[in-house]
Amino acid sequence: MNTRILFVKRPVGWVDESCFAIEQGPEPVAGPQDVLVQALYLSTDPYLRGRMNDGPSYAPGFTLGQPVVSRVVGRVIASNNTGFAVGDYVWGFLDWAERVVAPRGEGLHKIDPSLGPVSLAISALGMPGLTAWVGMMELGKPAPGDTVFISSAAGTVGQLAGQFAKRAGARVVGSAGADHKVAYVLEKCGFDAAFNYKEHDTGEALRELCPRGVDVYFDNVGGTTLEAALGHANVGARFPVCGMISAYNLTEDRGIRNLQMLLSKRITMTGFIVGDHVHKLPAYQARVAPWFARGETVFAEDIVPGIERAPATLIGMFNGEAIGKRLVQVAEDSGR
Amino acid sequence: MNTRILFVKRPVGWVDESCFAIEQGPEPVAGPQDVLVQALYLSTDPYLRGRMNDGPSYAPGFTLGQPVVSRVVGRVIASNNTGFAVGDYVWGFLDWAERVVAPRGEGLHKIDPSLGPVSLAISALGMPGLTAWVGMMELGKPAPGDTVFISSAAGTVGQLAGQFAKRAGARVVGSAGADHKVAYVLEKCGFDAAFNYKEHDTGEALRELCPRGVDVYFDNVGGTTLEAALGHANVGARFPVCGMISAYNLTEDRGIRNLQMLLSKRITMTGFIVGDHVHKLPAYQARVAPWFARGETVFAEDIVPGIERAPATLIGMFNGEAIGKRLVQVAEDSGR
Repeated sequence: MNTRILFVKRPVGWVDESCFAIEQGPEPVAGPQDVLVQALYLSTDPYLRGRMNDGPSYAPGFTLGQPVVSRVVGRVIASNNTGFAVGDYVWGFLDWAERVVAPRGEGLHKIDPSLGPVSLAISALGMPGLTAWVGMMELGKPAPGDTVFISSAAGTVGQLAGQFAKRAGARVVGSAGADHKVAYVLEKCGFDAAFNYKEHDTGEALRELCPRGVDVYFDNVGGTTLEAALGHANVGARFPVCGMISAYNLTEDRGIRNLQMLLSKRITMTGFIVGDHVHKLPAYQARVAPWFARGETVFAEDIVPGIERAPATLIGMFNGEAIGKRLVQVAEDSGR
Repeated sequence: MNTRILFVKRPVGWVDESCFAIEQGPEPVAGPQDVLVQALYLSTDPYLRGRMNDGPSYAPGFTLGQPVVSRVVGRVIASNNTGFAVGDYVWGFLDWAERVVAPRGEGLHKIDPSLGPVSLAISALGMPGLTAWVGMMELGKPAPGDTVFISSAAGTVGQLAGQFAKRAGARVVGSAGADHKVAYVLEKCGFDAAFNYKEHDTGEALRELCPRGVDVYFDNVGGTTLEAALGHANVGARFPVCGMISAYNLTEDRGIRNLQMLLSKRITMTGFIVGDHVHKLPAYQARVAPWFARGETVFAEDIVPGIERAPATLIGMFNGEAIGKRLVQVAEDSGR
C-alpha cells in the first residue's frame, strides 16, 4: 500500500492536523513514458501556507481531497522514459506520497549525488541556496567591512546568505525568533552578532549591534523589521527583498512608514524571485558544493522521519520550530 | 538702497506673506577677497518649505530675521578675488537681495553663457536637470517601447525626465495637479498621455493610460501615487525615487501599503540625491545644451519680475501655480 497525505480542509488562521488526512491507497503504476519515484524527502516551506487558502495568491491553491504538493527528493524505481534510469536521484514538485508517478517524467530534475547529500538539492545546493546567493552577492554586494543585517537568520536562506556575506568579508548580524536559533547562527554559522526579535526591540538591537549602521539588509520579513533597517541604514545601502512574510497573514498591510529613508539615504531596494535566475544554478552548485564538502559553509537540516508525521512536521515549521531546512524523511537511502 | 527679503515668522501649515518682510538696507561692500554679485534670478523651490520649519530636516532651517536663501543667478559687479571678474555670470546659494557679497567668493559657481540663457544654470542646465538625467537615464533606464510614468510631470525635473525618456524611445505618461499643466506636458513636452490627479483616480488613470503596465516610475511624490504605480508596475520595473513630497507635510507617514509588490514584480526602487552626482554636471551640460539650443527639448520657465514680489511668488509656487521653474527676476541683464 502507498501512503499519501491529503489536504482536506482549508484552515482559518492557524493550521492544525484536521486540515490533513493520511490515506492508504493502491500502489501507483507507471504508464508509457512515465517515471515511478520513491520519495526520500518532502520539503516543508512557509509558502505552503498560502497554497492552503482559496483566494488569489502567486501560486495556485491546493485542491481539497488531493495530496499536498511540495518539492520532493526521490529515487527512480521504475522508468518507461529514456530520460530517466532506475537509480537516478531526482527532485520535483510532487504529491506527498511514498511513491508517485511523474507522467512522462515532466517536472523531474536529476540530482548529481557527487555534489553532496541528495537532500541538499532542494535546499543549500538548490533553489533556496541560489536565492541566498543572488540576493546577497548579486544584489546586496557586501564589501569587506560592510555591516550586513539578515532577518529570519536561522532560516534556510538566511543562514546561507549570512555565511556568503562572511566569506565576502562583511560583518554579519542576524535576527531570529528563538534563543536556540540565535545560538545556532552565532556558534555554527559564524555570525558576528544576533538577537531574538521577540525579546528585543529590533531598532534598539540594531543601534547596539550595528554601531556603524547597516550597509546591506537582506529582507525576509518586511514590516516593522524593514522599518528598523531603513532607520539604521547607511547612505548607499542595498536592500535585497527576498520575502515579506510579516505581510502574508495580514488582511490589511499596515504600510511601511519611513520609506522616505530611501531618498535621504540613497538606498536601493530590489525585490527578486529565484525563478528568474534558474539558469545560474549549475554555476552556483559548482562554486559552493566544495565549501559544504570541506565544512567551510554549514547548513542545518532538520529531518523528521516518517511520512505519517508530515502534517505535524509542516505545522511545526509554520510555528517556527525548525532551524534551517525542515524535511520529512519518507525512506532510507544509501544516497545520503 | 539694497532691497532684501527677510524671513520673519515660522509658518504653521500654509505659508502666507506675514512670514516675510521686505527691507531696504545699505548697499553691501566687498571686502578683501570678496565678490559682489548683482542678483538676476532667485529660485523658488518646494524644499524651501522645509527650511522654514524649526525641527530637524535635511537642510538647516532659516534663521528668523535673516534673509531667505536659495539658488540665485547673478553677475559679478565688483571683485577683490582673482577667481572672479566683473561681468562673470555666477550662481550660488545666496541671500535674497538685490546685491549680495559672497565672502572670498566661496560657494559661487561660474556659468558659461554660451550654453544657453544663464537662468537655466539653476534649472534645465543645472542640478535639477542633472537630477532628471540621473534618475531617468541611469536608474530608470527606459528602453524603446517601455512605458514610463512620471508624477509632478510639469515640474522642473518631471518635464525634463519625460523628454529624456521620449528621446530614449519610451512611451511617457505624466500626472500633474492642474489641467493647464496636463496640457503643457502633452502639447509642449511631447508626453504621450497625461492626467490631472486631482480629477482622476491615479490607479484608474494608469489602468487606462498604461495598458501595457509601467516599466519605469519616476517618483516625485510617494504616497498613494507610489502605491498606484506599484500596483501597475511590470515585472522588472525600475522606480527611481527623486522625492516623496506627499510625506513632507504629514506629521505621521501613513505608510506604503503594497510594498510587497517589490517582490512579486521584482521591482528595483532607488533613492538618489543629485549631490552625489555633481561631477557629472559638465558632461550633462555638454550633452543636452544643444538639444535646448535646437529646440528639440523644451523647458518652461515661469519668470516673475520684481524682488518685492518674491514672497508672493514663492507662496504661489508652494500652492502649485507654476509650470516648470519659477524664478523671481531681480534685474534685467543682457545675458538673457
